[in-house]
Amino acid sequence: MKTNKYVIGIDFGTNSCRSSIFDISNGDELAGNIFAYPTGEAGVIIDTSDPNLARQNPADYLLGIESTIKAAIKVAGNGYPDFSAEKIIGIGIDTTGSSPMPVDKKGNPLCFDEKFKDNPASYVWLWKDHTSYSEARGITEQAAKTRPHYLSKIGGVYSSEWFWSKIWHCQKESPAVFNDAYSFVEICDWLPAVLVGDTNPDNIKRSICAAGHKAMYNEQWGGLPDYEFLESLSHGLGEMRKRIFNKAFAADERAGCLSREWADKLGLSTNVSVAVGAFDAHMGAVGAGVKTGTLVKILGTSTCDIMVWPNDKKLADIPGVCGIVDGSVMQGYYGIEAGQSAVGDIFLWFVNNLVPDSYGKTQDEKFINLESAASKLKPGETGLLVLDWNNGNRTILVDVRLTGLLLGQTLHTQAHEIYRALVEATAFGALAIIDRIEENGVKINEVINCGGLAIKNSMLMQIYADVTGRPMKVSKSKQTPALGAAIFAAVSAGKNVSGFESVDEAKDVMTGINKTYNPIPENHNVYKEIYKLYKRLHDGFGTKETTGNYFNVMKDLLDIRDKVRKEL
Amino acid sequence: MKTNKYVIGIDFGTNSCRSSIFDISNGDELAGNIFAYPTGEAGVIIDTSDPNLARQNPADYLLGIESTIKAAIKVAGNGYPDFSAEKIIGIGIDTTGSSPMPVDKKGNPLCFDEKFKDNPASYVWLWKDHTSYSEARGITEQAAKTRPHYLSKIGGVYSSEWFWSKIWHCQKESPAVFNDAYSFVEICDWLPAVLVGDTNPDNIKRSICAAGHKAMYNEQWGGLPDYEFLESLSHGLGEMRKRIFNKAFAADERAGCLSREWADKLGLSTNVSVAVGAFDAHMGAVGAGVKTGTLVKILGTSTCDIMVWPNDKKLADIPGVCGIVDGSVMQGYYGIEAGQSAVGDIFLWFVNNLVPDSYGKTQDEKFINLESAASKLKPGETGLLVLDWNNGNRTILVDVRLTGLLLGQTLHTQAHEIYRALVEATAFGALAIIDRIEENGVKINEVINCGGLAIKNSMLMQIYADVTGRPMKVSKSKQTPALGAAIFAAVSAGKNVSGFESVDEAKDVMTGINKTYNPIPENHNVYKEIYKLYKRLHDGFGTKETTGNYFNVMKDLLDIRDKVRKEL
Repeated sequence: MKTNKYVIGIDFGTNSCRSSIFDISNGDELAGNIFAYPTGEAGVIIDTSDPNLARQNPADYLLGIESTIKAAIKVAGNGYPDFSAEKIIGIGIDTTGSSPMPVDKKGNPLCFDEKFKDNPASYVWLWKDHTSYSEARGITEQAAKTRPHYLSKIGGVYSSEWFWSKIWHCQKESPAVFNDAYSFVEICDWLPAVLVGDTNPDNIKRSICAAGHKAMYNEQWGGLPDYEFLESLSHGLGEMRKRIFNKAFAADERAGCLSREWADKLGLSTNVSVAVGAFDAHMGAVGAGVKTGTLVKILGTSTCDIMVWPNDKKLADIPGVCGIVDGSVMQGYYGIEAGQSAVGDIFLWFVNNLVPDSYGKTQDEKFINLESAASKLKPGETGLLVLDWNNGNRTILVDVRLTGLLLGQTLHTQAHEIYRALVEATAFGALAIIDRIEENGVKINEVINCGGLAIKNSMLMQIYADVTGRPMKVSKSKQTPALGAAIFAAVSAGKNVSGFESVDEAKDVMTGINKTYNPIPENHNVYKEIYKLYKRLHDGFGTKETTGNYFNVMKDLLDIRDKVRKEL
Repeated sequence: MKTNKYVIGIDFGTNSCRSSIFDISNGDELAGNIFAYPTGEAGVIIDTSDPNLARQNPADYLLGIESTIKAAIKVAGNGYPDFSAEKIIGIGIDTTGSSPMPVDKKGNPLCFDEKFKDNPASYVWLWKDHTSYSEARGITEQAAKTRPHYLSKIGGVYSSEWFWSKIWHCQKESPAVFNDAYSFVEICDWLPAVLVGDTNPDNIKRSICAAGHKAMYNEQWGGLPDYEFLESLSHGLGEMRKRIFNKAFAADERAGCLSREWADKLGLSTNVSVAVGAFDAHMGAVGAGVKTGTLVKILGTSTCDIMVWPNDKKLADIPGVCGIVDGSVMQGYYGIEAGQSAVGDIFLWFVNNLVPDSYGKTQDEKFINLESAASKLKPGETGLLVLDWNNGNRTILVDVRLTGLLLGQTLHTQAHEIYRALVEATAFGALAIIDRIEENGVKINEVINCGGLAIKNSMLMQIYADVTGRPMKVSKSKQTPALGAAIFAAVSAGKNVSGFESVDEAKDVMTGINKTYNPIPENHNVYKEIYKLYKRLHDGFGTKETTGNYFNVMKDLLDIRDKVRKEL
């Protein structure tokens, strides 16, 4: 079936956004264009005196939409004679999250108001803003006492990456902003609303994905956490709840059609369907072809692990996962979300701060040479062991007050050895998540990887296969979140227009696998030994319950290293 | 008393040697000259496939003696009208150790023999060669079973940095070298013998310092370990003992007078007294003005901590110190030696391997900028904690099978923060030694620091004062080992010539204090908290006995960091 119809997915990342145009008959990307956010450092407003602070300017998103869609349409028009802008039937949007911002009654961001423009609290509170760690702890403690059911669906611990922690911290950090805010809106909800031309907070169709995973929304208990609970946290939060939302929607719903203003701006028709938004990882999972038994890993600056599970089958609570939300990925399934707080971010930190120029002058050169040198090393050869906690541990410990650990360095340890150990650490972190999910009854039959690291870093993918002992598949699409968003756009356009009845149907047509990395048994055997040591440190530093003696850790690593070196 | 007499101290370090000419009336250095060893990497023969291997070419030493003494004499002659080479009355030598080498019957190094020139086992086994770690363990185990008194004077554990481990490993690594070796000689014994013109191993006056601290020599049990014990380690070691030595000497003894050959070569008289050699740290302690109650810290690539204790007073065994040897520093006193396996070496490793060029292009520039940035930080501000074990832990754990640990890094951690944490770690290591010595009844009234780091790195000295809560004095002489060697040279020349009856007398005239760093109470208070965490990790990873839970470690560091940052 050659429909000659196209959809746009817009993926709003941490440092840039990207629009991609996809052919709905096969999921191929005709054109894509990236826009780097101009505000702050690599698009993030930071505060050198507080490493926890990370905000973003929503004006950057609007510039990005216009710039990237127009550029992508132009490129697609030049490269594909069959393509024309009139054949675009839908736009889907995915974003980071939880990334809420305070808005006024019309839904305008407070940071657009002259009086708040120098106040970081009035901007978007980016997912990786951890300023609210003590509020997160407060929510966890209060819920444990009075609303334990709230915690059971979010792995037992509320996070500073999430909605209510951030809003509560906003109230403390800047009462002026909080008091002037009519509502708080996730950017995945606000951006579709902008495109359809109605940002009135009371009208915005909020995402079930954002609501369920980050705002403790659950229809079982009547939506958002109740008024009394929120007021018990802090006076004013309960009142704010009334102006947030009562009902959330899945992303195959239509938010509306493109407004006249935006249709003109982009050169598109007002018939274009705009889908309800969702988070990048959830849409990415769809773009990677998620199904029951499939773990989709979206490997980027941080990592999201997504699974689905039929919502008519029994599913236990899984301690330490970020959330289990009915419909958050696709209607009819529970979405299970887990993740690692930093993966690519750890490598970036290392390359930007601790790699001498002997590896190259630019960041890219350094990465290439580090990977080339590191890939020549055998498992265990570095003698190093790392805990991948530079940004805390999301799953399975749900603890932002954890930090990195590097162990085993000698006077001969070189940067590429540490780089390899960092990659291995993220693989161990990935394995801890896999084990935790399977221990709780959700069998994982395949692992599909997507995101930049999965595509570009073959050493990393092989190490993940060797550490986990499982084949690592890599998704065909290089832009799975955008593709996922586009799939929802196609479905939201309706069967009459796209031909797709359901997300499952569109997904089967538009997704696929590109490459598979198979585990090498002898490598897996070495990593099994090292993982035992990783897990001991993981539990010793990451849980209150584990006591132990670590006298053997360095020695065992040296023994493994010496054995491997002898075999070379 | 202006005697107008001069002495030369030659200090053989790990990468270079240095000759200094001192005025015996005040210890002032008239001239000094350095010679970088030409062989290997920075003077050390290494093996990229075995980071434990570190050998040295004795030919480098001979080139160094000639080059540095001639150059120093020339400079002194130009700068000081009163000086002339005829007024030089003695030469003293200090070296690294234990750094033994195999020699033939005439005392010629086996590596000078054409047939062994490509065999690293025939060269000097440098102190920091750790290839013999399993032999060290074997010696400790065997001694614990059959000769526990051997261990009681060396802190309970025999080290791979020491004499018998290296000789035993030589037997395993290269039986050809071992079997051709008539004897093994410490370079601190061999070099004075070269200068007096008699290297016959049976005639060489061996140093009590080297013998007692590294070769388990003790007159209480008849000198070196007995034949049966050595044979029980490995057949052949007992036979080798017979050709090593029976009696050892203190460094104020004269090895002999300068040979005609060397007198001519250096432009000196054959009346010049050559003192028995000793290790750099022990002579450095004398050059720094060691006395009862004084801890002298020689801060270099590694660190030696030296104390003396009157040999007519009770002194308990001190677990974990490297050795307690009667007369090893000065006659009439027990010499107590402790030390840290790597201090400057850790900083060098870090700067050479993990510091980007944004801190500077050269090693020197990087150090300057790291120190400048790190010195602006407050104690606790980095949130980092390091175990300074990249080269194992000499005192108090006596364990080379330990490695480094860095904990607390986030995505914002920068190189200068880690640099500061590395410096702090070595200060914590220093404090662990101070505590251990005092807990065993040896009161420390003052700490005198010497060596390059003490002179050049004021941030380090202030951190040491703040961490230990004690004033850190810095020795007046920048060349304390060479000055110590020169003091022994002066004493060995005899009272008639030098005017000195004893080392104590010469020391009082020739040494002094330059500068004192006083602890800052508020810094000390923060470091007391961090030291508790250091000590928990130290014991948890460094001893078999300690079990614990480390859940609070990262959190406590973050709490300290956040508190410090708030106060800024």
